[in-house]
Amino acid sequence: MTYCPVHEAIQILQEKWTLHIIRSLLDGPKGFNELSRAVGGCNSATLTHRLEQLEARQLLTKTVISYMPPRSSYALSEAGVALGGVVDAIAQWGLQYLHPDAEGRFHVGG
Amino acid sequence: MTYCPVHEAIQILQEKWTLHIIRSLLDGPKGFNELSRAVGGCNSATLTHRLEQLEARQLLTKTVISYMPPRSSYALSEAGVALGGVVDAIAQWGLQYLHPDAEGRFHVGG
Repeated sequence: MTYCPVHEAIQILQEKWTLHIIRSLLDGPKGFNELSRAVGGCNSATLTHRLEQLEARQLLTKTVISYMPPRSSYALSEAGVALGGVVDAIAQWGLQYLHPDAEGRFHVGG
Repeated sequence: MTYCPVHEAIQILQEKWTLHIIRSLLDGPKGFNELSRAVGGCNSATLTHRLEQLEARQLLTKTVISYMPPRSSYALSEAGVALGGVVDAIAQWGLQYLHPDAEGRFHVGG
């Protein structure tokens, strides 16, 4: 198979929690707990693994603030910040096409 | 938790293969086999399941062309076509930030 940058970009962004993490960090660096609350529903082990992967992919950087107690801060890299355009497009679509049902859950067509 | 249309949009789009399927159908309706080749690497049972889910979500429509042999055509709904903006943003990012290594695989920073 031939590799394609667009196919690969989708491969990266379809990994669970990635877009939630990027969205959350777009308004500034966050510590692990704050990020965990913002992402919502992702357990700590999974979030840790995904953050390591995004760091290895150069989409974010991790800064250790203290070792005891362990505290770190996560910030988007330049390439990560540039994903703001993707998050904006998703937000625009969601606001236009997803409507709440009687329970407040959003669906296409409402 | 409060529901948010942007959070829900990310939930939908982070499901594996969804963005590949949307991207593939943006240039027109496709049959199952053609779609399967375009998406690449997704087995038939998984692709069938995902297509059913996207149909239930009103992102695409399925038209049965013949029952014997079974042939169907998949096309994006209006809300599905509107995801073209998201795919465009992803493509723009991928083309700008992902660079091939010696083996032709794409990474941030090349």
